[in-house]
Amino acid sequence: MTDSTLLESVHAYEKALAENDLEKLADFFESGEETIRGDEKALLVGSEQIQQFRTTRGGIQQRTLENIEIRNLTESLALVVSVSKFARGGHGLQTQLWRKSEPIGDETKVSQWRIAAAHVSSKPKPFDTSLWRVVGDPLIQTRKAEGLLTGLSVAVKDLFAVAGQPIGAGNPAYLAEQEPETTTAPALQALLDSGGSVRGIARTDEFAYSIAGLNDHYGAPRNGANPLLIPGGSASAVANGLADIGLGTDTAGSVRVPASYQGLWGLRTTHGTVSRDNLLPLAPSFDTVGWLTRDAETMYQTTSVFFEAEQKLSPQTLTVASEFLELCEPETVEKFWAELSARRLSHETISLQDHGVKKPAELYEIFRLVQCGEAWESWGAWVKEHPGALGEAVEQRFLTARDTDREKIEVAQRDFRHQKELINRLTNEKVFALPTVPGAAPRLGASAEEINMVRANTLSLTAFAGIGGLPGLSVPRLEVETSVGKAPVGICLVAAAHTDLALVEWARRTFVD
Amino acid sequence: MTDSTLLESVHAYEKALAENDLEKLADFFESGEETIRGDEKALLVGSEQIQQFRTTRGGIQQRTLENIEIRNLTESLALVVSVSKFARGGHGLQTQLWRKSEPIGDETKVSQWRIAAAHVSSKPKPFDTSLWRVVGDPLIQTRKAEGLLTGLSVAVKDLFAVAGQPIGAGNPAYLAEQEPETTTAPALQALLDSGGSVRGIARTDEFAYSIAGLNDHYGAPRNGANPLLIPGGSASAVANGLADIGLGTDTAGSVRVPASYQGLWGLRTTHGTVSRDNLLPLAPSFDTVGWLTRDAETMYQTTSVFFEAEQKLSPQTLTVASEFLELCEPETVEKFWAELSARRLSHETISLQDHGVKKPAELYEIFRLVQCGEAWESWGAWVKEHPGALGEAVEQRFLTARDTDREKIEVAQRDFRHQKELINRLTNEKVFALPTVPGAAPRLGASAEEINMVRANTLSLTAFAGIGGLPGLSVPRLEVETSVGKAPVGICLVAAAHTDLALVEWARRTFVD
Repeated sequence: MTDSTLLESVHAYEKALAENDLEKLADFFESGEETIRGDEKALLVGSEQIQQFRTTRGGIQQRTLENIEIRNLTESLALVVSVSKFARGGHGLQTQLWRKSEPIGDETKVSQWRIAAAHVSSKPKPFDTSLWRVVGDPLIQTRKAEGLLTGLSVAVKDLFAVAGQPIGAGNPAYLAEQEPETTTAPALQALLDSGGSVRGIARTDEFAYSIAGLNDHYGAPRNGANPLLIPGGSASAVANGLADIGLGTDTAGSVRVPASYQGLWGLRTTHGTVSRDNLLPLAPSFDTVGWLTRDAETMYQTTSVFFEAEQKLSPQTLTVASEFLELCEPETVEKFWAELSARRLSHETISLQDHGVKKPAELYEIFRLVQCGEAWESWGAWVKEHPGALGEAVEQRFLTARDTDREKIEVAQRDFRHQKELINRLTNEKVFALPTVPGAAPRLGASAEEINMVRANTLSLTAFAGIGGLPGLSVPRLEVETSVGKAPVGICLVAAAHTDLALVEWARRTFVD
Repeated sequence: MTDSTLLESVHAYEKALAENDLEKLADFFESGEETIRGDEKALLVGSEQIQQFRTTRGGIQQRTLENIEIRNLTESLALVVSVSKFARGGHGLQTQLWRKSEPIGDETKVSQWRIAAAHVSSKPKPFDTSLWRVVGDPLIQTRKAEGLLTGLSVAVKDLFAVAGQPIGAGNPAYLAEQEPETTTAPALQALLDSGGSVRGIARTDEFAYSIAGLNDHYGAPRNGANPLLIPGGSASAVANGLADIGLGTDTAGSVRVPASYQGLWGLRTTHGTVSRDNLLPLAPSFDTVGWLTRDAETMYQTTSVFFEAEQKLSPQTLTVASEFLELCEPETVEKFWAELSARRLSHETISLQDHGVKKPAELYEIFRLVQCGEAWESWGAWVKEHPGALGEAVEQRFLTARDTDREKIEVAQRDFRHQKELINRLTNEKVFALPTVPGAAPRLGASAEEINMVRANTLSLTAFAGIGGLPGLSVPRLEVETSVGKAPVGICLVAAAHTDLALVEWARRTFVD
């Protein structure tokens, strides 16, 4: 009793998929808020979300349908489950709920089967290459090492040397020129010596010169908190439960920003305290090692590997600088105050300017200029020798760095030293609290302009700890609404240099229920 | 208008899943032939298949449901799509079609919502650890190497040395004791030098002492041809489209058997021709290097890396030994003859015994005894020092090897040398054709006895090339029916020593349409 037009529709839809005919595909789905399309990465609700998703991906590999199971539920409803067999090996599975529209009042219009809901299991890939470059069970483990991190797995950003593997730096042209490293970076080795194992090498933004986490060559790894938002950097392995600790770097915010975007704990350490040997530089005046975890306990254990609990931190009062809040979205500010109040955290509000510290946007400009000088010094020669090798946004950033007036940079370097001193004086006895970023992560597919605007405000918040060389801990405490669902935002705690472990310890006591 | 009992049922089902309560879970699915459960690995049809699947897996990780989307389709039909959020990070997605049963005639019985169809996307793992130990994009590639294999990826069995990685041999206790290798095995290096890249290191049966592909420690990798059948060895990466070439070993049939089970081309090379340096041994008198591919062209390219096309092979007539067919299932035999006839391949049928060659079962016994002696010599010391470290079936095999009478082994060694000479004389001018294995791969979950019986008949077929030290090429040409769908069976071509490339070339011309 299978309606022959149903099977025809199934095959016609398959054909439209093969041709990636977006218009036809859109027409095969019911329009409206109720339509569903889900896969292992995301659940999309409403035809608008579904259509947007289609524009951001290419076509599918050549495949044929086999084992088509049809369940006729009513005259006008059928469930179709089919296995897709790919020409180059491998299978997928799709479940589709089809509904026949009855043409009402219009006799000339024919009824048509459309998809009301679809669930797709794509052909499994060896692994998610947007997230990892190399991955193992484990990739590396030190024989007989036992310690604080026994049983925990590490995703290491592809800037650290891993013995036996080349460094990739998020760029295929760079990777192709590298020989395997003979030594493992000391920061990673410390985790291994404490019993941790390396699960894999995580993709990075090219040369870490971005906080978006959108790598043009390998794609954006999934945001573990909300798959429709940009990830913000290489925190995805941890946020998606694929590793326990993310070992990364934070120059402008590459630990703190993804921590905030994906609901993780993330620590940028005091500048110069954790070894940067065998680690690719970006801007040495700001480059720090940092790490991300899902929970406070793992954050504490990991930090304990590197820091002794010498300095105590018992702030009576948190310090909030009004200038930071001015850069944040209203909902973020509201939730920020609500959290402080809910936890009965006393605070003082100050103005940075009253203490001679420049406005956040000015701090960012100083940061940016010094970073331009150092980033070009680090990678300019390579960039010049490899025209066209970089993704657009990162290339633009390097070209800006190249073209920036050296005298302006020198002025910024002087300002940097002065502001660093002032910030350190100001934070000496205080713990600052601020939203890690202005609000939720931008949507995947947001325009470059949109992302750049968010970037400027974000880096105006993060430059404070960056210029100060201070530890910054992003604590996943806030939640805001977006047009595509809830999204996390972190509270960033910034304290005096060399209080890293004390800061983590205090935050764990204060923010964990 | 959502029926409150539906949502209750969704949550009750979730609870039963969390408790892995098989009885309750079975009751939540409609019984009968029409019920569907699918995931990225397999599509199960009928409540019997679904129940059997549940018994072979453990419970699920702790999770909560979020974003529950309910579409009420009729009074008694609803689609429920939900995202599962795992306590240790990561998300899954499930689509369920629920149907309310109306109690007919029995007023005391309440109506109940049951699942008519379900599609599950599990929480993504970093990668499939039953299939790979380490995997990369690529894991290894030789800088600037170009050649026959440019653009092709290799899955290498975890017995070959890969520089920078320890060898795992399919056993975690063994792996834990190994240091990273400093040299790559020459057989693998040859593929790299020809432009191939290593995608990853594929799991192996423990010390390659099995042809089942069921590793007790890491689980069975998916059979790429039919996911409800056992894989037969480390061919899964190729069969599932995750790599183009599988580099393996064939002692008793570890290339030919999985090739047959998963519908691949698989070549066991002439004994002693491809370097076994930096490769763990099992039974050196029989150990050979071999490879698996999805298509004839890749098989030819790969074989060309190792062999020059010096010897021509133009058999006027294929030779079929009646003794082999007696060991095969009737459908296999029927399809075998049908294929030869469809391709108009002339053939002669002979009896091995007429040429002094022993019966297949006797050849297998000679093979088995010599293998026992050598396997214990290779691994006996390690096995003794690691009680309990091996999976049950492999341990049993090693213990049998240990306990086998040495005099019996010596007799077998003499028989081996004599039979080897006779087989080489017999195949000198002939190309033998036989089913690679007696029939379809056994079902996953088949009893150890069942698998052992199939094993004995299988090895009776494969021992001929094994004892002869001859090349054996499994060509994926036959298809048979099983209780869980169609399954491939290979035709094995066995020819004179050192005709490897000529054999592949001839098979490509003969069997590819």
